Formats: sequence, C-alpha cells, structure tokens
Amino acid sequence: MQITTSTEPELKEIIARYTRAADQRDGAAMAKLYEADAVIEVYYRGPDGMEALGKLSGAAQIEASMTTAMAPHPPLGWSHHTTYDHLVTIDGDEADIETQFITYDVVGTRKPEGGWPAGTFGAQGTIKPIESGYYHYFFRRTDGVWRIRRMNITHDIPYVF
Amino acid sequence: MQITTSTEPELKEIIARYTRAADQRDGAAMAKLYEADAVIEVYYRGPDGMEALGKLSGAAQIEASMTTAMAPHPPLGWSHHTTYDHLVTIDGDEADIETQFITYDVVGTRKPEGGWPAGTFGAQGTIKPIESGYYHYFFRRTDGVWRIRRMNITHDIPYVF
Amino acid sequence: MQITTSTEPELKEIIARYTRAADQRDGAAMAKLYEADAVIEVYYRGPDGMEALGKLSGAAQIEASMTTAMAPHPPLGWSHHTTYDHLVTIDGDEADIETQFITYDVVGTRKPEGGWPAGTFGAQGTIKPIESGYYHYFFRRTDGVWRIRRMNITHDIPYVF
Repeated sequence: MQITTSTEPELKEIIARYTRAADQRDGAAMAKLYEADAVIEVYYRGPDGMEALGKLSGAAQIEASMTTAMAPHPPLGWSHHTTYDHLVTIDGDEADIETQFITYDVVGTRKPEGGWPAGTFGAQGTIKPIESGYYHYFFRRTDGVWRIRRMNITHDIPYVF
Repeated sequence: MQITTSTEPELKEIIARYTRAADQRDGAAMAKLYEADAVIEVYYRGPDGMEALGKLSGAAQIEASMTTAMAPHPPLGWSHHTTYDHLVTIDGDEADIETQFITYDVVGTRKPEGGWPAGTFGAQGTIKPIESGYYHYFFRRTDGVWRIRRMNITHDIPYVF
Repeated sequence: MQITTSTEPELKEIIARYTRAADQRDGAAMAKLYEADAVIEVYYRGPDGMEALGKLSGAAQIEASMTTAMAPHPPLGWSHHTTYDHLVTIDGDEADIETQFITYDVVGTRKPEGGWPAGTFGAQGTIKPIESGYYHYFFRRTDGVWRIRRMNITHDIPYVF
C-alpha cells in the first residue's frame, strides 16, 4: 500500500460531502460525487452470509434515490450519517476507503403553545442510532478529479425496503 | 480551495482540544483556543429557519461559559462532545472546518453497598446522545499560531437555556 | 510537538484496524498491531480517581483477550468500536494518539417466520452505546514499521469483569 498524503484529504472530503448530501436528501449534490456510470450495491451481512438488498446503477438512479429510497424528514426531524475509523488505500489514480458508519435519527420536540415549562433546560428532542455498518468507497481520478466509481453499503441489521 | 496538508492536522488538533475542554468544563483550556475577541454564535435551525439562541463575545465570556452555560457533571457523570466528517477549507492564513457533532451524556451506576450482583458483566451506566448539529470553526493564523476567530454552533433540535 | 504528516495516516490506520479486530473478535489481527511485549492497562476514572481494572502483558495475552475478556456476539449481533477527535503527537520514532471512544452494541431483529409485517420499513434492530471513554495509544517505529507498544483504556463508567 502506498499512502499519498495530499490525496487523502480530497477523498475524505468526498465522504464528508456524501454524509451532508444524504442528510439533506440532496440528490444533485449526491450525484456529483459519483462517476456517471457508478454503481452502489447494498447488502445485509446476516447469519447466512451476505444478502443483496438492492443496487443503484448510474448517477441518475443515485440522484433519484435521495427522494425515492430515503424517507423525507418529518417536521422538526433531521438525520446524521456519520463515518468512523477510515481504512485508506491509495494506488495512483485508484483508491478506496472503508469506514464504519452509524445513521442517527433526530426529532425535535415542538415548543408548547404556552412556552417551555419552567425548569426546562438543554436540547429538547431525541437522537437515536437507527442504522450501522460499513461503507466501502472505490474512487478513481480522471482529469485530476476524484469521484466515486463504485460503493458497497453493508448493513449490520436486517433492512426492509 | 487549496489544501495544505501540513496545516490540516494543526486545525483538527484545535477541534480535538475543543471537545476535551468542553467535556472537562475547563474554561481556561477552552479560551486558549480562541482569539481574544473571538465570537461564538449559537443557533437552532428549526422549521421557520435559523433562530439565534445566544452569542459569546471575547475569550473571557467563552471561558466563563464553561461554568455558566454548561451544567456541571453530576456524580459519576461525564460527557463526550464528538465531531464527524470534517469539511476543510484552507486559504493561506485563513481556514474553516465544518463538522457534524453529537454530544453524549454519560452517567455511571454507583456500585451497590453489597457489591455488584452475581452475573453483572460489562460497563454499568447509560450513554445517551442528547445534542446534535453542526460546528463551523473559522480559524486565523497569527505569528504562526492558528486560533479560532469565529464559530457557529447550529443545533438540530430546540434548545432551552 | 512535531507533526510529520506522512506518519499520521499510518498511525490512524493502526487505530482503524484496532476497531475492526475488536468488532470481529479477531485475536490474531489484534495482536499483529502490538509489539511482542506490549502492555494494555484498563482503568475506570471514577469519583475516587483512577481505579485499575486489569492489565494485559504481551501479544499472546492481547490475542487471547479477544475471546476470553470479550463476549462473543449473539445471533444477529455485532458491535462497533468507534474513535473520535484524535490528539496526535509524533516525535521521531515515538508517537502517541489519544482518542475518545464509544462502543456500540448492535442486535438485529430476526425476520418473522411469516415475513415482515406490512408497513415495515428501514433497519430492524437496536444500536446502543454501551461503553465510552478514552484510548491512549503509544506507538514505536522499529525497522520502519509502527506498532503499539503500550495502551491505556480509560472507561467513564464502572466496568465489571
């Protein structure tokens, strides 16, 4: 494995932008991170091995998935897709990063008509981890620009579409 | 955007020290990360847009906020301010980093007078995410030292002081 | 403190591999990250100061601990050892990194005999933070290879073995 330190920040920025686009349900921002014919494969790693959950082929499907495959945020709702402990491999114009991920569901409490009760202090709502697993991003550099050409999402727990 | 890889570790160290100072409620350690006239603005991004929650002006106010705006830890209590998926921009002696954040509340279970019951195993207590949102740090380098000159904290859920 | 940016990715990779080995309960992969006579000390930082919980001496003990000190995953179970906000110090062939950590317990829901009920959507199971604290890794480079020579694990909440 060859580490090129100037490349690593660029790749991690793509992952950071992935999390923002997913949380904003912003298909256009998401699609821009991928090559036009990129493929995302989604798996559940269960007791009987890897179970394929779905596949997205091409930037148009990836863009659409932000509204078709992901539920819109409820009122006062938000999410955080978060990544951890990146394993980075860089080899010339090819690279890949595997991360742990956890997705948090965030729902705020609506302010009561008569205002917050006396003694209320701090953040009002719930923040709950709802998904976890591994992202594996495969990148390629073309004309000096790194993009995702392939990605595997592996869930730890069963996922129903 | 220009990435200077030798600078990025220095900026991330400031963020790591921010999380430690916040968890230790250490006003002096926190204030040292900021310029003397730095400003922190706190927002809630709600259904009606950005709502200003508060503002700290100057290192003295920032130092004091660790004891005035943050509750002390209860017995056997602790916290973890954690950051994720940094978006880094560096331009000469100016830089900024946006992170996702989650704050965890940690409360240990007190050991019973008669000792732990038979069969007790593992960590005893609760770890709960209580706040989430985005930190946006704006840095400036003066005489070779990077400090925070401005910071926006944006909460996902309503926050009551 | 001297930052050598080409070294930092190598050290962070060791930490990322630590989290993977812990989650896979893979003693051989874990032991490879340490020097042959490495020492791990485990503490609980409680109201009365630091309480020693245990000590592992040498790679053989470290390897064995993945099956003796850690519970095997239950059916449909998994874990995520995650690290945050690294404080990095590099000095020639010596280095250390302190991280915050949270360990998540993951348990999937088993698919019902008759299939998932109508209206089921998303990930099925629970993801729960069960441990938190600080990892402090001390590294040494020998013959060009970085390994962990000493590690302190400090828990925030009481831990019963």
